[in-house]
Amino acid sequence: MATIQEVAKLAKVGVATVSRVINKTGYVKEETRERIEAAIKELNYTPNAVARNLYRNKSGVIAVIVPEIDHPFFSEFVNELEEICAEHKYKIMLCNTWFKENYEHQYLAMLKEKLVDGVVVASHSLDIEEYAAIDRPIVALDRQLGNGIPCVRSDHEVGGRLAAEELLRAGCKKVVQFRAEENKSAPFIVRHDTFENVLRENGIELENIYTKWNYLSYEYNQKLCQDFFRDHPDIDGVFATDIIAMNIEIEALKSGMRIPEDVRIVSYDGTGIIKLSYPSITVIEQPVKELAAKCFQHLESQIEGEKPTQSMITLPVKLIKGMSTNI
Amino acid sequence: MATIQEVAKLAKVGVATVSRVINKTGYVKEETRERIEAAIKELNYTPNAVARNLYRNKSGVIAVIVPEIDHPFFSEFVNELEEICAEHKYKIMLCNTWFKENYEHQYLAMLKEKLVDGVVVASHSLDIEEYAAIDRPIVALDRQLGNGIPCVRSDHEVGGRLAAEELLRAGCKKVVQFRAEENKSAPFIVRHDTFENVLRENGIELENIYTKWNYLSYEYNQKLCQDFFRDHPDIDGVFATDIIAMNIEIEALKSGMRIPEDVRIVSYDGTGIIKLSYPSITVIEQPVKELAAKCFQHLESQIEGEKPTQSMITLPVKLIKGMSTNI
Repeated sequence: MATIQEVAKLAKVGVATVSRVINKTGYVKEETRERIEAAIKELNYTPNAVARNLYRNKSGVIAVIVPEIDHPFFSEFVNELEEICAEHKYKIMLCNTWFKENYEHQYLAMLKEKLVDGVVVASHSLDIEEYAAIDRPIVALDRQLGNGIPCVRSDHEVGGRLAAEELLRAGCKKVVQFRAEENKSAPFIVRHDTFENVLRENGIELENIYTKWNYLSYEYNQKLCQDFFRDHPDIDGVFATDIIAMNIEIEALKSGMRIPEDVRIVSYDGTGIIKLSYPSITVIEQPVKELAAKCFQHLESQIEGEKPTQSMITLPVKLIKGMSTNI
Repeated sequence: MATIQEVAKLAKVGVATVSRVINKTGYVKEETRERIEAAIKELNYTPNAVARNLYRNKSGVIAVIVPEIDHPFFSEFVNELEEICAEHKYKIMLCNTWFKENYEHQYLAMLKEKLVDGVVVASHSLDIEEYAAIDRPIVALDRQLGNGIPCVRSDHEVGGRLAAEELLRAGCKKVVQFRAEENKSAPFIVRHDTFENVLRENGIELENIYTKWNYLSYEYNQKLCQDFFRDHPDIDGVFATDIIAMNIEIEALKSGMRIPEDVRIVSYDGTGIIKLSYPSITVIEQPVKELAAKCFQHLESQIEGEKPTQSMITLPVKLIKGMSTNI
């Protein structure tokens, strides 16, 4: 594995000249070009993204900030984002913000210092003003950071409506939804409000159970659901994200309840783990691959010097019926 | 968010002098120090890892190469690794190698060019010789790359033995284990050989089902297990990794079989998703947090200039009993 410096040395030229030959940009004398090509061949040099980016004054690195990478939604999102980035010769720098106060400062500083070309923010603990003050490429996944920073999200309003209508159709009379802390805000909150409104309009009783912001672990969610039906014996419908929905199903089975006859469940997100539920759970699926693609697209155009034109990019969700509402 | 350059400019000194004050290294005149400290305060500058690392001629970046970040074992591993790295002021660059032929070349080139300080290899598609030829900090998770590159792994031999003994104890007579392609090698393969040997020594019939190398997705594993008990009606024990084990449990339930009475299951890995199995599945748990800690420790010592002293670091696994072998 030769470096561009070694090629330049052997060809007795500067690194910039080698870059011009590799990238087919700018004029290089025929004789010099031949010498460089011979050096590339002799050293078995593969031009890499780093060399290209040095020349273009870019780091070739995109930072992605998530609450926790071991949560299925974020690991799938980062997986898709990494694929797209790799195709476009970008590398990914990963940042888990969970319990790291103001850790994002470092990434925003790196952005300012051009050590990373752009940031995808899928979680934030800083004040929105701090983001808005940075005139560099940023895209937010499901977070509104203001100042025209593009926000990519699923159509949570339709998601909340589809979930409510599915539970209504399945004949639920007393429903619980698990939702994030009351005093926190993000675009996805709208699905909970829509869900609540549709049920109330139809005269259905609804209880909200609030979960701690960014508490995503299997342990936390398992505890949260423990003995749920002891305290809620007459609940016949539940709406929650994948891990909670699967825990609720287990609690129902443990209590000897039948699914869907005694309890109907609709899950939100539709990550891979939901395939491990039995009876299979009905889900509102977020288009993770497309969310990642849109994040990349709107970030890359900023990196290429364009001003963001859209502040909100909304992608459709999909209802996938499982056994948990099959009534 | 001020940069170190802005602090240097305001204090009318060079960046290196600011670094010396921040890092408390080298001599700086009292008067100059005071001026720098005043500038830091005025600009509300937070010294960051980048500034520190520029001074120390390090990138402060560790690359981690995994097959797929959305597989629970790798997402938990990277989650833990990122935590430890953050504590030690390193950032993580992430590389999914799945279906990207020779993509690792780029990371090894970055290592050579000091754009990353070290690489944690949890998957490799290159020839081992290419790794062995690099005299820079590398640590492998569960891969033997040769040339004294430290390999961190779980005690798979004990893992295979514990699994076999648990199924024996539960009275299994005809067992299937799912294992990676026959012609591929990695340290974890030893658990399958040990598992097989223990069963055969005890006169138990064993069938091996081979899975494709690095095919880790929920979809692939779901298909793999589909209608398993139609083709294997007399199997009463299964040993597999988490996702397969959970799919096998679902197939058993679909076929009207009882767990553990008709089929006993032991899973390997013990990632968070196994908590979503019901009846709960008995697992051999890999110590993911400790694996990440050891990888970091053995990588950092190389980054600090030490030669690797251990080529194999083995950590204990743990049997956690669930309902799936409760007989």
